[in-house]
Amino acid sequence: MVKVPYVRFPVLARNGEGRIGSAELIAAVIEEIESGRLVAGSRLPPVRVLERNLGPSKNTVQAAYEELALRGLIEAREREGWFVSARLARAAPEPLPPPPLPKLKPAPVLGPPRAAKDGIALSVVFIDPELLPTEKLADCARSVLRQPGMAALYDAQGYPPLRAAIAERLNARGFSVSPEEVIITTGSQQAIDLVARALEVRRVATETPVYAHGRHVFESFGIQVTGLPLDPFGRVDLADWAARLERTRPGALYAITSFQNPTGYSYSTHELEQLIALSRRFDFALIEDDWGSDMLPDGEPRPTLRQLGGRSVTYINSFTKKLLPSLRVGYLIADPSLVPTLVGMKRLGTLGNAWLTEAIVCEFLERGYYDRHLSELGQALEARYERCLEILRRLMPEDVRFTTPGGGPTLWLELPKEIDLVALAKATADRGVYIESTNNAYLGEPHLNGFRVSYAYSAPEKLERGLTILAEEIRRARGLRPSPA
Amino acid sequence: MVKVPYVRFPVLARNGEGRIGSAELIAAVIEEIESGRLVAGSRLPPVRVLERNLGPSKNTVQAAYEELALRGLIEAREREGWFVSARLARAAPEPLPPPPLPKLKPAPVLGPPRAAKDGIALSVVFIDPELLPTEKLADCARSVLRQPGMAALYDAQGYPPLRAAIAERLNARGFSVSPEEVIITTGSQQAIDLVARALEVRRVATETPVYAHGRHVFESFGIQVTGLPLDPFGRVDLADWAARLERTRPGALYAITSFQNPTGYSYSTHELEQLIALSRRFDFALIEDDWGSDMLPDGEPRPTLRQLGGRSVTYINSFTKKLLPSLRVGYLIADPSLVPTLVGMKRLGTLGNAWLTEAIVCEFLERGYYDRHLSELGQALEARYERCLEILRRLMPEDVRFTTPGGGPTLWLELPKEIDLVALAKATADRGVYIESTNNAYLGEPHLNGFRVSYAYSAPEKLERGLTILAEEIRRARGLRPSPA
Repeated sequence: MVKVPYVRFPVLARNGEGRIGSAELIAAVIEEIESGRLVAGSRLPPVRVLERNLGPSKNTVQAAYEELALRGLIEAREREGWFVSARLARAAPEPLPPPPLPKLKPAPVLGPPRAAKDGIALSVVFIDPELLPTEKLADCARSVLRQPGMAALYDAQGYPPLRAAIAERLNARGFSVSPEEVIITTGSQQAIDLVARALEVRRVATETPVYAHGRHVFESFGIQVTGLPLDPFGRVDLADWAARLERTRPGALYAITSFQNPTGYSYSTHELEQLIALSRRFDFALIEDDWGSDMLPDGEPRPTLRQLGGRSVTYINSFTKKLLPSLRVGYLIADPSLVPTLVGMKRLGTLGNAWLTEAIVCEFLERGYYDRHLSELGQALEARYERCLEILRRLMPEDVRFTTPGGGPTLWLELPKEIDLVALAKATADRGVYIESTNNAYLGEPHLNGFRVSYAYSAPEKLERGLTILAEEIRRARGLRPSPA
Repeated sequence: MVKVPYVRFPVLARNGEGRIGSAELIAAVIEEIESGRLVAGSRLPPVRVLERNLGPSKNTVQAAYEELALRGLIEAREREGWFVSARLARAAPEPLPPPPLPKLKPAPVLGPPRAAKDGIALSVVFIDPELLPTEKLADCARSVLRQPGMAALYDAQGYPPLRAAIAERLNARGFSVSPEEVIITTGSQQAIDLVARALEVRRVATETPVYAHGRHVFESFGIQVTGLPLDPFGRVDLADWAARLERTRPGALYAITSFQNPTGYSYSTHELEQLIALSRRFDFALIEDDWGSDMLPDGEPRPTLRQLGGRSVTYINSFTKKLLPSLRVGYLIADPSLVPTLVGMKRLGTLGNAWLTEAIVCEFLERGYYDRHLSELGQALEARYERCLEILRRLMPEDVRFTTPGGGPTLWLELPKEIDLVALAKATADRGVYIESTNNAYLGEPHLNGFRVSYAYSAPEKLERGLTILAEEIRRARGLRPSPA
């Protein structure tokens, strides 16, 4: 049985004035009834509540209630408590009309919901859970929990031993990072969010197509976004980028420098150096999102902006994709002068994040599991990549192009301009194969007509089934024979 | 030894064009050197990297590098790789000058850092970790981890079984909530953040003094804040609030309705009903932050706005304080029409939160541990509350007032106007006792001259030591004898 909430009346808010007696309590209830504030059918505060708030003994309250009942003002209902009777009290009004709803902005456009479980999601950037160390992570969790109980408090900047372990890892790669420069975040998304919240500048530049969640965060703070066209089949057109940067003068550039999302492009060292030169020429800061530089076997990470540009490059990375999405552990590395504002923004957004998941990732790093995992993951991705190329070469019509990113999680599949992506996506979805139309990833008119293909997410057999259906639908869309000769 | 990062050059970004031969690779390297893009001392990509990207066999790459070495263009260094030799290449430039730092806003003013560990923190709103079920939570965590591995993915709105368990609990209290209306958040802070991000309105009203982190979130989004003065020793001055609301016309009101932070005030039922009437009269939405209504023994929660106003009251609550701060699990309940925008804002801020901590809280609820814990916690707080009142009555000078909130975590201690809080805080801090000066909690001139005293955080003996020093410093500040007769 759901208990009716009791009515909390003013005498209960009477503060610091010491105990009250039975007569005073009776007078207070009568005043509430006579004023019309306490209506018929209201439940009175339980005896214990009055005892706690007002300091009289249980017996005093009980005596007061019994006296009020004798006068016909209130009545006891078994196991329910004391209620105002209808004899003298004002009748209860109709239920209160509801208050207005808050006026909210429209929901941000964040791409379609995830594909149905039994379909084949060709464009998902997640890595196949089969490739992720769920058992080793559970081991680490159990080990963290072997200490009695759980830590009660948290550090707003992030679990200090994890910050130290991250700095140590990056320093072993030739970065120069101290634990005080590391801020743990809920995935890389919160890292982007903290930067966007903190930026004083009103315009940033990003690649187009861009990681749409990143673009929308900047825009949600009223920051304008300059698009720098990326062609995953060519090189960065540095002259064109320079012209756009000079024209629009952003205060910062946000770039995903390895396996860019969604194109899969990785910058060359020369391009990274030129970005640094441009940043000095046009006075903008560099925000590097580096989910991908270590997603290769052999411990030979791709070059990063942070290594070339030093600690004034703000650096974002995450364990989300590579370790386990459900842990939601990422990090942000920033020059020490920026840390107070960025941690302040984190305190505004979430105060701090879950200690347990931070401790689990720390244990995983300290046991040396992460390096072995990355190497195994890189090898698995490399095998899947080779397999994906083989399937594409076999199945796709000649004028369908695809990039060869050299491993990593995704490549870009580009279709002839006359093929309508939206219609194609619908046709494949009807057959249980989902591709991602990336319209909200473009700033301005799309200069590409394609989408990412993730060999990281689907096992090769599943990928082949999906790509077979995709190839059939591409041929059908062009009036070609539905399968290759 | 830290490996020098290899130089990624354009031929590696050459995409989808099939394999290249040895001669082509040699030509590409020579072009890079001649153009000056590849400078003396640069490390060339490892053989495996070229193999992956360009498709030639390992032997082809090896042959090309050896040919380049024969021509004196590159040289091998043992265990380090292939490097551009100084003979024909351009000399390496000085280290790149660093890019500009991002221009950030100043750090938000969020109150002093946490007290030193060996001090006595009198104003901390956390609950004493000794009162929290760290062992039972660890049990639940181990049980969640008994299933093989860990769940790989997460639900952006929050772990569905936890959303269902929260709805069920609240419905048992007489709320009307479906799991689809529940959004799991990183503590209540993210819940406030999501509302603030989503609000279309440019002004909200809050109590003054107010929970400062809440106020700063609204302000950080450029939302103006109307202060509604709260006197924890009196009642809400509804006529004054109505006048302020009419004058400033906020679009929403954010209120902590039980054990308000920082005053400890709990609204009466009549006041809650009047807030609903005012919301209709002046067309503003109601955001209720309800950390406190169930923090009492006997399962008799205080009345809430949500119960009186129904589902158009947006409702925030958290397990952070009551269960374990380090879990960072809170929630937001909103009318179904608001959920898409609020979940969209969550996706922008953090995408989703850690699955494991959500699953642990769910297990804790499903085992029925939470009700027992709340009841034990309520009893412990009640005992500490009584003890705190006894100490205050014994130690404090006559004109120092304090509220009697009837349990819960904190009360308000009000000093005579002539006592300077900042000087007092400094004097007690010098003796290891920390009180919180709450200047950034006021909108406009402070109408109070006090601070919260938390009997929830410090065990009674510690609290008594702290309050003894506080009372001595209050007397000293007034020129009274340092201890009572």
